[in-house]
Amino acid sequence: MVRKVVIVGGGFGGLAAAKALARNADLQITVFDRRNYHLFQPLLYQVATAGLSPADIAVPIRAILSGKSNVEVTLAEIDGVDLAAKTVRSGTRNWPFDSLVLACGARHAYFGHDEWEEHAPGLKTLEQATEIRRRILLAFELAERATDPEERKRYLTFAIVGGGPTGVELAGAIAEISRTTLEKDFRHIDPARTRVVLIQGGPRVLEAFDESLSRRAARDLETLGVQVWTSSRVTEVTADGVRLGSESLRAGTVIWAAGVQPSPIGRALGVPLDSAGRVVVGPDLAVPGHPDVFVIGDQAAVRGADGKPLPGLAPVAMQEGRYVADLVRRGVPAAERAPFRYLDKGQMATIGRSRAVLEFGALRFGGFLAWAAWLFIHIFYLIGFKNRLTVFANWTWSYLTFKRGARLITERDWRA
Amino acid sequence: MVRKVVIVGGGFGGLAAAKALARNADLQITVFDRRNYHLFQPLLYQVATAGLSPADIAVPIRAILSGKSNVEVTLAEIDGVDLAAKTVRSGTRNWPFDSLVLACGARHAYFGHDEWEEHAPGLKTLEQATEIRRRILLAFELAERATDPEERKRYLTFAIVGGGPTGVELAGAIAEISRTTLEKDFRHIDPARTRVVLIQGGPRVLEAFDESLSRRAARDLETLGVQVWTSSRVTEVTADGVRLGSESLRAGTVIWAAGVQPSPIGRALGVPLDSAGRVVVGPDLAVPGHPDVFVIGDQAAVRGADGKPLPGLAPVAMQEGRYVADLVRRGVPAAERAPFRYLDKGQMATIGRSRAVLEFGALRFGGFLAWAAWLFIHIFYLIGFKNRLTVFANWTWSYLTFKRGARLITERDWRA
Repeated sequence: MVRKVVIVGGGFGGLAAAKALARNADLQITVFDRRNYHLFQPLLYQVATAGLSPADIAVPIRAILSGKSNVEVTLAEIDGVDLAAKTVRSGTRNWPFDSLVLACGARHAYFGHDEWEEHAPGLKTLEQATEIRRRILLAFELAERATDPEERKRYLTFAIVGGGPTGVELAGAIAEISRTTLEKDFRHIDPARTRVVLIQGGPRVLEAFDESLSRRAARDLETLGVQVWTSSRVTEVTADGVRLGSESLRAGTVIWAAGVQPSPIGRALGVPLDSAGRVVVGPDLAVPGHPDVFVIGDQAAVRGADGKPLPGLAPVAMQEGRYVADLVRRGVPAAERAPFRYLDKGQMATIGRSRAVLEFGALRFGGFLAWAAWLFIHIFYLIGFKNRLTVFANWTWSYLTFKRGARLITERDWRA
Repeated sequence: MVRKVVIVGGGFGGLAAAKALARNADLQITVFDRRNYHLFQPLLYQVATAGLSPADIAVPIRAILSGKSNVEVTLAEIDGVDLAAKTVRSGTRNWPFDSLVLACGARHAYFGHDEWEEHAPGLKTLEQATEIRRRILLAFELAERATDPEERKRYLTFAIVGGGPTGVELAGAIAEISRTTLEKDFRHIDPARTRVVLIQGGPRVLEAFDESLSRRAARDLETLGVQVWTSSRVTEVTADGVRLGSESLRAGTVIWAAGVQPSPIGRALGVPLDSAGRVVVGPDLAVPGHPDVFVIGDQAAVRGADGKPLPGLAPVAMQEGRYVADLVRRGVPAAERAPFRYLDKGQMATIGRSRAVLEFGALRFGGFLAWAAWLFIHIFYLIGFKNRLTVFANWTWSYLTFKRGARLITERDWRA
C-alpha cells in the first residue's frame, strides 16, 4: 500500500527528509512550500551586501527533486493542520497524509514591536535581502547628494541591532564595503568615514560561541571600523534611528538581526509550545499523542544531550530531517523509536574578508584559517554545481579586486 | 575656464558621451540618472526568462566612471530643464550647465491604454523583468496545482503582444523553457504543451528587418512551437487574456512588447516634438535655437542619410553620444558643425538557442552562425570584465544542460 507523506517547508530540514524518503517506491511524497525555491540562508547576508545575486543562493525546489518520480512539489502556503482528520489545508483545499513533517522554519521577530519593521527590516528572505541592499546603497547615494552635514552624517551611520552571526556578518560586510569597494566612487563624501554600530543586548557578541571567540570577533570587527556596543538594549526604532533607554543614535539605516520566532503554523496545531513559540516534541521529534506528525528544524523545541535547546542551525535541521525520514520509511511504532541524537557539527561566523571564528567541539580558532574553512564549507554545502561554481568565481573576483558584483538599487514596485 | 557639462541618463548614449568627455580636464561633468546602474537592455529578456540575474546585465554607473576624476554621478530624477537659465531641476534643487546632453531613453507605451499595464507588463526595467519572470514561472506552478482543465489550459497560454526583437526573443525563450528546462519538473502537467502566441499588428514579425529574415524568424519560431499571429491587432487586455476585434484569446500571462514612448522630459522642454513624442533636433543633434542643448538616443528624432528616422538601437545612441561629446569638447559654434552621420552597424535578433537573424548592409543570414555572432557581440559589448565572464559561463552552462539558473519567484513586497 502506498503511504502519503506530506512535508511542509523546503528548507534544510524538509529537503533532507524529502531526499531520504524519495528512495522508497511505496511512499508518495508531497513537498509544500510558499516559495518555489530552497534558500541557502547562511549566505543571505552576502545578497544584502551586494556580494552575491539572489539566484546564486536559491535553487527551485522542483529542480532539486525533479529526478525523484515519487516526489511532487506544490507551491502553496499551508495554513492549517487537522490532526484528527490527518489533512493539511491551504485556503479551501485539503490534502490528506499518513505521515506529516512540519519544517516551516522561523521568521524574524520584533518582540511585540512589529511597527519597527518598516524602519528596521530583518534578514530572513530574498526580498528582505534586496531591500536591505537597496537601503545600504541608497544611503551612500543620499549622503553624496546631501547638502546639510548633519544629514550626511546620519546617512553614513548604519545601526545593526543584534550581535549574533547575522549581525556580525552584516556589520563586517558594510564596514568593508565602505572602506574598499566604494572608496573611489564618490566625490562629496569619504565612504571610509562611514559609522557602523553593532548593538548587542547581552554582554558580548556571538553569545552562542565560546567567550574567547566572542572577544576575537569583537576585536576583528573593531579593526574593520565597526563600533561594538554591548549590553545595549534598543527601546525604540524610528525613521530617524534607534533609542537605547536614555541614549539615542541617529542612523540613516537600521537593520534588525535581533530575534526570530517560529512559523505561526505551530501555534495553529493547538499543541504545547515552549516560551519561544516552538512546538515541544518528544525525543522522537513527534508531537506528543500524534506519532505520525513530526516537527523539525527551527520550528521544533528539541533538547540536546546536555539538556540545552538545540540551536537554529542547518546541520540540526538536516539531521532531524534524515532521522524522521528513517522512522517514516521503516514505519517504526512510537514505542520502539530510538531518540534523536544531534551530532555536533560546530558553528562558525565570518567577519569580513579573511577573518572568521570557528568552533568545533574543543577546537576553537579565528583568523584566515577559520575564514578558509568557512569558505570551503559554505561552497561545499550549496546545492547545485552551478551555484558552487558561480559563488566561488564571485568570491575569487571580489577577493582579488575588492569589488562587489550586485550593487543594484532596485525599486519595490515593478511599475516604478 | 572650467565648463560644466550635464548629462541626463546613464544609458548607452549618456555613458558614451561621459566617457568621451572625461578626457578633458577643463570640463566638469555630472551624470544624472534616477537609477544607480547602467542597464544592458538588449539582454533584459534573458532576465525575464530566468537565464541571467539582474546583476549580470547591470553595472553601477558610479563604478564605470569611478576612475574619471572630473566626472561625478548623482542619483536623481531630473524633472525639468530651464533652457533660458541653463539649469536642470530635480524637485526643488537646480543645477547649472554650460552644455546639456539629454539621453533619457524611452519607456514602454500602451497607446493611450495605461490600464492594460497591470495585466500586461512591458519590458524596459529590471523590476519589470523580474516581474515578468515571476509571472511566467508562477503560471506553470498554478497550472500544476489547478484542478479544472480549462483553468490549466489558460495558465499554460502565454500571449506576447508585439513582434519586434523583444517580442520575438521573449516568445522564443518561453517556448524553449517549456520544452526543455521544465520538461521533467512537473507531475500533473506537461510543460511541452504550453501555448505561446506571438501577436503582431503588421503583416510580418521583425518589420525593421528584410522580408527574407522576417520569414526565417517566423519559421524558426514555429519550429519552437510558437504560434505567430500576424495582422492581428489587440483591442483590449483583461485579467483573462486579450481581445483582438471580434476574436479573443484566454491567456494566463500577457506580456507587452508592442510600443515605446520617449521619456516625458522631452515634452517638458517646450520645443517641437515629432508624432512619436521625440524631440526634433537639428543635424547637429542640438535643440533648434539652443546650440548648447543636445538630445540623443531614443529620445531624439534623427533622420538617417536615407531620410528615414534612425532606429532605437544602442549603436545609434552611442555614436550620437560620441559625436555630441566631440562638439562640446572642442566648443564648435553652431554654424561650423558638421552634421551627424550614422554608420550603420546592422541589427540582429535571437530566436531561442542556436537560432538568430542578422542583417548588416547587404549581408543577411540566419541560423547557428547568426546566433554565434549574436552571442559574441552581446558578450563583447557588456560593460565589465566580470559580467562578460559570468554571462559567458551562464550561457555555456545553459547550452550544455538546458537549465536556467535564475528560476526564482520573488514577491513584490519585501515584507511578504
